[in-house]
Amino acid sequence: MDEAMRKVPVELGPESYTIYIGKDLNESILSVLRAKSYSKKALLVTDSHVGPLYGASVRSVLRQAGLEVSLYEVPAGEHTKNLAEAEKLYTRCIELGLDRKSPIFALGGGVVGDLTGFVAATYMRGVPFVQLPTSLLAMVDSSVGGKVAVNHALGKNLIGSFYQPDAVFMDLSMLDSLPKREIYTGLGEIVKYGMIYDAAFFDFLVQHAEEVLRLACEPTRHMIARSCEIKAAVVSQDEKEAGLRRILNFGHTMGHAIEKETGYIRYNHGEAVAIGMAGAADISVQMGLLQEADAQRIERLIEAMHLPLHAEGCTVDAMYADIFHDKKTIGGKVNWVLLDRIGHAVCRNDVPESVVRRAMQARIQQ
Amino acid sequence: MDEAMRKVPVELGPESYTIYIGKDLNESILSVLRAKSYSKKALLVTDSHVGPLYGASVRSVLRQAGLEVSLYEVPAGEHTKNLAEAEKLYTRCIELGLDRKSPIFALGGGVVGDLTGFVAATYMRGVPFVQLPTSLLAMVDSSVGGKVAVNHALGKNLIGSFYQPDAVFMDLSMLDSLPKREIYTGLGEIVKYGMIYDAAFFDFLVQHAEEVLRLACEPTRHMIARSCEIKAAVVSQDEKEAGLRRILNFGHTMGHAIEKETGYIRYNHGEAVAIGMAGAADISVQMGLLQEADAQRIERLIEAMHLPLHAEGCTVDAMYADIFHDKKTIGGKVNWVLLDRIGHAVCRNDVPESVVRRAMQARIQQ
Repeated sequence: MDEAMRKVPVELGPESYTIYIGKDLNESILSVLRAKSYSKKALLVTDSHVGPLYGASVRSVLRQAGLEVSLYEVPAGEHTKNLAEAEKLYTRCIELGLDRKSPIFALGGGVVGDLTGFVAATYMRGVPFVQLPTSLLAMVDSSVGGKVAVNHALGKNLIGSFYQPDAVFMDLSMLDSLPKREIYTGLGEIVKYGMIYDAAFFDFLVQHAEEVLRLACEPTRHMIARSCEIKAAVVSQDEKEAGLRRILNFGHTMGHAIEKETGYIRYNHGEAVAIGMAGAADISVQMGLLQEADAQRIERLIEAMHLPLHAEGCTVDAMYADIFHDKKTIGGKVNWVLLDRIGHAVCRNDVPESVVRRAMQARIQQ
Repeated sequence: MDEAMRKVPVELGPESYTIYIGKDLNESILSVLRAKSYSKKALLVTDSHVGPLYGASVRSVLRQAGLEVSLYEVPAGEHTKNLAEAEKLYTRCIELGLDRKSPIFALGGGVVGDLTGFVAATYMRGVPFVQLPTSLLAMVDSSVGGKVAVNHALGKNLIGSFYQPDAVFMDLSMLDSLPKREIYTGLGEIVKYGMIYDAAFFDFLVQHAEEVLRLACEPTRHMIARSCEIKAAVVSQDEKEAGLRRILNFGHTMGHAIEKETGYIRYNHGEAVAIGMAGAADISVQMGLLQEADAQRIERLIEAMHLPLHAEGCTVDAMYADIFHDKKTIGGKVNWVLLDRIGHAVCRNDVPESVVRRAMQARIQQ
């Protein structure tokens, strides 16, 4: 057992679960799985990038826990996250004879987690689901909070569900194989937690930017654990996104528009959200909520994490139209998540079009 | 307002809802919908049989409630209940700009309810769902309890979710257009409630068989309301089918095998379940749980409802193999729902193969 392992409890009544964060989690995995009354047959879903690296070793730990595990590899990449891939996974589950108590494990980044989680949520109306996120972004974002989904040709994550895992295991040693750009992407979501919820954590990231960029052990573990704690705190208070949880969408309204306008290719999620956070900070200043100096501190931290502040290949008109197709838009009103100071978010649905357009214009300039 | 309207509350904590049963529900529909904070845009899903009969009138009531309602007609029939149709529905929802508070209405039988419910459960991770069941079977079975699903090529209802509607409106005058065989089908599920939960209701059905077969108003309303009450009582105690709810599957283990072996064509669901209930009663007698005389009373009531007691086109070997692919089978053990008297069900997973085969043999003889 890794003595420096951190546990983050996610309190959701009967659906509560624990996140385990450390460098050698095998003992924890074994003791958690042995305590469950799962059926023997299990499925381990991964992708064509992660599978060759960690598929065999994870499978062997699950076998030690007494499970009869089949490995299923989906093609790596966002295009895998659709109903057609979900249907293939259902077919595999049926062929293997998985029943209502057969656990399904997701080993990979956000795509694997979201797709596998959607299948676990809907196969036989829900089977046990365990996450083993391998990317920094998946660790701090998509594996906490129970959002599972696949994309529709007309928009991301439009088909999905709220479905909590039984447990989440984050093996920090898996981060070593991540490309640098993927690290920056994860840092985009991490700095968000400081901005919306915890000024001290924002300061920690400013001070330790260089260390976390090279994934130094202790600050990295703290950064991931603190991010999960913040997300867990928010989600516990509002599982189905009726109110508070919306603050997690800080930067996402403009970010989604940027992802859409650039065909989900030029910028990855964290990069688009980084630009969106700078845009939301700009709107916050225009609305008289945030100090100009704080907006500048936000921009500097984004830059320090090697993330972009401006988007290429977008027009204001197109981005403006896109925000009305976002899932957060209700009754034609766009719910903007803004900041009234670093460490505290507010929701506003009365932002004038001219303010939004001005902020967008500033984000597409070079 | 129909003075003789019956309301059945379904108690599920924050997901509680009410079923309204009567002959003129327009006032109830209006007052319920006006009290909700729905978005204006709504979708009314129906099928090619029900749409031409009731689509326009229901749409006009929903419009009176202030909704901007689009009508979407799926082809009538079980083959419509699949992921491909669900995907078309998602596309329509997106094209119409439905948001997270846009209600989706299901007007039709079980296929429309299950498919529409699955889409409502998963579009944007869940939007408001209102059911207007038009068949007797949908009223007493699929519209109570929150089970929504689509079929997979390898099995029925394998992809789905538990998702509660906001309200269910059962307009008894819509039953008048049902073919006789559909009435018998619904009666198959109704007699089941008497058998598993309420001996007095079983007796009521024996005594009023002729009246309910011709849908006489008062006994029909009572029969539907009582069926919903029983199903609601069971579901309230066990929403996710961890225990008690399994008793609702009485007759379904063998019934599903019969449906599968006859290609979902020769027998409809209620007919297959009727044969399965006679089979389960037979197993109950063989296991020493039920009196032979009670098994005979059960067979007589099934016959009185114009339902079959024997299946053509099945073999014992094939049926026996099928039961291991059922969703109710966990860890390779078949959970049989049996009776220890009329009005009380018990679950057993220790029924010997020879007993099951003997009961199946008796059901496929003529």
